[in-house]
This record gives sequence, structure tokens and C-alpha cells, in this order.
Amino acid sequence: MQGIFSEAASFFSELQKRICKELEETDTVGKFCSDAWERPGGGGGLTRVLSDGDVFEKCGVSWSSVEGILPVELAQSMFGDGQTFRATGISLVLHPRSPYIPTTHANLRCIVHGEKVWFGGGADLTPYYFYKDDAIHFHQILSNVCKKHGTVADYSTFKKWCDEYFYLPHRKETRGIGGIFFDHLGIDSTLIQDAFSFVCDLGDVMMNAYLPIVAAHRKASYGDKERNWQLYRRGRYVEFNLLHDRGTIFGLQTDGRTESILMSLPPLVRWDYGTSPPSFDSREARLLQVLKPIDWLSNS
Amino acid sequence: MQGIFSEAASFFSELQKRICKELEETDTVGKFCSDAWERPGGGGGLTRVLSDGDVFEKCGVSWSSVEGILPVELAQSMFGDGQTFRATGISLVLHPRSPYIPTTHANLRCIVHGEKVWFGGGADLTPYYFYKDDAIHFHQILSNVCKKHGTVADYSTFKKWCDEYFYLPHRKETRGIGGIFFDHLGIDSTLIQDAFSFVCDLGDVMMNAYLPIVAAHRKASYGDKERNWQLYRRGRYVEFNLLHDRGTIFGLQTDGRTESILMSLPPLVRWDYGTSPPSFDSREARLLQVLKPIDWLSNS
Repeated sequence: MQGIFSEAASFFSELQKRICKELEETDTVGKFCSDAWERPGGGGGLTRVLSDGDVFEKCGVSWSSVEGILPVELAQSMFGDGQTFRATGISLVLHPRSPYIPTTHANLRCIVHGEKVWFGGGADLTPYYFYKDDAIHFHQILSNVCKKHGTVADYSTFKKWCDEYFYLPHRKETRGIGGIFFDHLGIDSTLIQDAFSFVCDLGDVMMNAYLPIVAAHRKASYGDKERNWQLYRRGRYVEFNLLHDRGTIFGLQTDGRTESILMSLPPLVRWDYGTSPPSFDSREARLLQVLKPIDWLSNS
Repeated sequence: MQGIFSEAASFFSELQKRICKELEETDTVGKFCSDAWERPGGGGGLTRVLSDGDVFEKCGVSWSSVEGILPVELAQSMFGDGQTFRATGISLVLHPRSPYIPTTHANLRCIVHGEKVWFGGGADLTPYYFYKDDAIHFHQILSNVCKKHGTVADYSTFKKWCDEYFYLPHRKETRGIGGIFFDHLGIDSTLIQDAFSFVCDLGDVMMNAYLPIVAAHRKASYGDKERNWQLYRRGRYVEFNLLHDRGTIFGLQTDGRTESILMSLPPLVRWDYGTSPPSFDSREARLLQVLKPIDWLSNS
């Protein structure tokens, strides 16, 4: 069981290199900085951030492989026995400069707790202006990779989980147009290899799911109106991550590395009082209409 | 007991008018908009916001007087009996444009739960650049008003409470240079009038505590470096309010009016990865040195 953990840690590390390289090639200007860090309780990570690029205003791609002792209460609330744990994962949050390119987030992780080993993760898309083709393309790629791994993955289930997870009750909106979210994959041990294969394939297609959307909108010009709407909507991203995201809150509560955890926050954000779309048929209003669970693949 | 609640509600409403007027006079350009709202469960409020002023980038001054039924668990965790409650209060958060003028926050409230009535509140200061005279002036005014109401108020106790409350564990910093914070004042009923008198006087001196600090710095010019530091430090304000502030989290969880609750968030905020002061003896570094409990009045 420890073997698959090490394999996962290596895969995630190699995936981080590949993704950063692809993002630099896409951006053409921005370069990732690298911060290697150690965790006092055991293990460490490599946080990589690209700031002020041409396409990307801020990209965070973080890898970690840590181990340690869980607080008793937390240990009891998790699958598995005992207090020792190991966790390895990759997480990425990409904040483009253009309001027409959506923000994307993804993470993949492998957890070991006592005898139990499992995978979790997900990928989702947060547009500021809505393009239906983007939503269909993104979900189609995710659906395809799930279909390929039918023993462990089910797109409909994972999509529903994502819609439920990335929900802001105080705004009565989903964070974006969804994606997939899953946890405890392979925990019954007979399917742990299948789970790992799925996670590897998902990692491999992440940029295929996102970069064509970047390419579709990167040349489109925009003005202050669109930029301000993007900065305002980015506030929702912050609200979700600080009020609701279990990973963020868990990380901060367990004395994780603050700068790595909060690298997900957008580079520049507005909070205006009482903002609403300029009119009911505006592009801004159109976005709000799709911030709810929608079956993007029903006609495709 | 209900009499004092109504008196408090009236006082807070009148205080809101006075404070908004003073802030408009100080700003000279910005004007408050007014949003009256009703709470589906009972009561309502008046949210007033000034945006894009000359001195102030965003001011929120909110009044409310609400009543309703508490969730069982919450009711049991509070002083008093039964599930019905009434709450009235004023809260303000002032975000100036200049990085040299600190943000200030204050709130005053009266709660009725069963037989119990009490007051709570506080006032605190969050500078982006540190001026010792500002800290001393602000704390001196608060200390004076506490001294005048010695039967219910104790500056040292309330100051310590403030330092403990406005603390960001994941940053190992206080939110700012403190102030006072108090709760359950007058709950033993014999001193409820004293508590109300204290709260009234505190409301009356709030602008005396803050506006001279505005006057001291409003003419000072600044550049991008100072502005970016302010926007970056404003991120801490958001982190505190969304991760830790009980009022914010309670309000959102109990289906409060989101726009009124989140009017406290700064108008424009940066999150840069790994920001640190330019040098150990810079003005930016000086700020970080005072973000811990400090006895501002020890030599005065």
C-alpha cells in the first residue's frame, strides 16, 4: 500500500513539471518561481507560482508530500485507523488576465491513514463571461476520462458532487459551471490501482480540458467594464475559498503553509456594494443564469 | 427590559445619521446611499454605503433591529432562555483611499434573549503604515470613555479582549493595533443602565477617536508602492473577516442580508504570493512589528 503512495507522489511531482512547462509555453512571457519547503511535522513540498504573465495574472501549481500525526478528533472523523497519516497531492489554480478566460482549479491527492489508502480530487471551471462551448468542451473531456475508468469513476456522480461542493449558500450560486469532484476512491483496496490509473489519466488531460478555452479567448479585447466585472466576480472565489473550502480551512487549521494554501486567491479583487448586472439581458446577467447545476452534455 | 432595547435601537439609528453626516463632511465629495431592508423573520435595517469618495474609498455604516427565532443549538449556547431573540446594533467599517490613513471598524449592539439583556461591541484600528501618535490617540480616547464608566467598563480588560479577538493565527499577527472589544455588558441586569450609558458615550466619541487621524494624513501624497502595500494588507482584513469574524460567519449562517454583512470587505484587494517588506528597516516592516498586543498608553 505504501508503494502506491510513493508512485502517486512521483506522478504528481512529474505532472507539476509538465503542467508548469505547458503554462509557460502558453503564456510566452511569465515564468514560474519555485519555493521548496519542509513541513516541521514531516515531509514538504514545492510551490510554484507564475505572476504577471501575458495570459496569466497569477498561476499557482503546488505539489506536496507530507506525513505526520493527526489531531485525535480529526483522525476519528476520517476513514482508517490510528493517528498517523501521509498525504501527497498536486493542486492548481489559474487566474487569467482576460475576463473572457475562465479561472480553473484542479487537485489530485492520495491519502494514507492506517490501513486505508485512497484518492481524491477534482477539476472545475469558473467563468466571468459565459461561453456554452467552453462548458461543453470542459465537461466532455472530464466525462470521457471517467468513462474510460468505469470501474471507479462515474461522471454523473462526480459532476453532482462538484455542483454540491462548489456552492455559496449566502449567494445562492455555484462558484462556476462545475466539473467533477471525488473522494475516497479505491478505499476498498481492490480497486486502488484502477483509482490511481483514473487519477493519472485525469492529470494528463487537465490541460487539454483548459488550454483550448484559453486559446479561444486570449486575443479578444476588453475594457474597464469587463475587467471590473471580473474583479468583482473574483470576490466570490475568495468568499468560497475562505468560508467553505474544506482544503483551505483544514490546511490553515492544521498549521499548514499559509502562503501555499492561499496561493489560490486571485491577484486582484473588488468588493462593491450591491453590484448587479447592467441589464437582464446583458452578458453579465447571462453568467448568473448558469451558476446552478446544469447538465452540459445532455445534447452532445 | 424591552424599554432599554427600544431606546438602544433609537440611539443607534440616530448615531448612524450623525456619523454618516460627519463622514460626508469629512469626505467633501462622497455621499452615502441608503438601502432599507426587511428581514423575512422579523425586523429590518438600514444599510448606508459611501463609495468612491475623495478621502474614503468605501464606508459602510449599517443599522439594524431584528427579531426572530434562534436555531436550538445556538439558543442553548447563548446566555438567556428560550428561542426568541431581539438584536439591534450599528456597525461601521471605513476604508480610506490613502494608505497612510488606517481602516477603522466599530460596532455596538444590544441583545435580548429570554430574560437576559446585554450590550456588546468594540472599536479597533487597522493601519497600513504605522504612526505611534495615531495608536496612542485612538487608545487614549477609548481608555477615557472606559474610565468614565468604571462600574461596567475596564479598558485593560476590553483592550486585551480586542487583541485576542482580532488575531489571525495563520499569519501570527493581530489584524491591526487593537482597540477595545466587550460583550455581555449589563447581563446581571442591575448594571444594564450603566452599560447603556457606556455604549452611548462610546458611540459619541467614535468619530473623535478616528477623524483626527484622518486629518493628520489626508494631504500626504503616496505612490504605487504604498498603494500596493495597502491593497496587499487589505487581504488580511478579508482573511480575518471571512475566516474568523464571528459576526460575519454568524450572519451568513443564519441567512442574514449578505450585502450588508459583507459591506465590511475592502473595495480593492491584492493577493500576491510571498510578499514581504522591502527591507528590515522599511516602513512596511515597521508595521509588522506592531501587529501584536502592545500597551500603547504605558508612558502617557
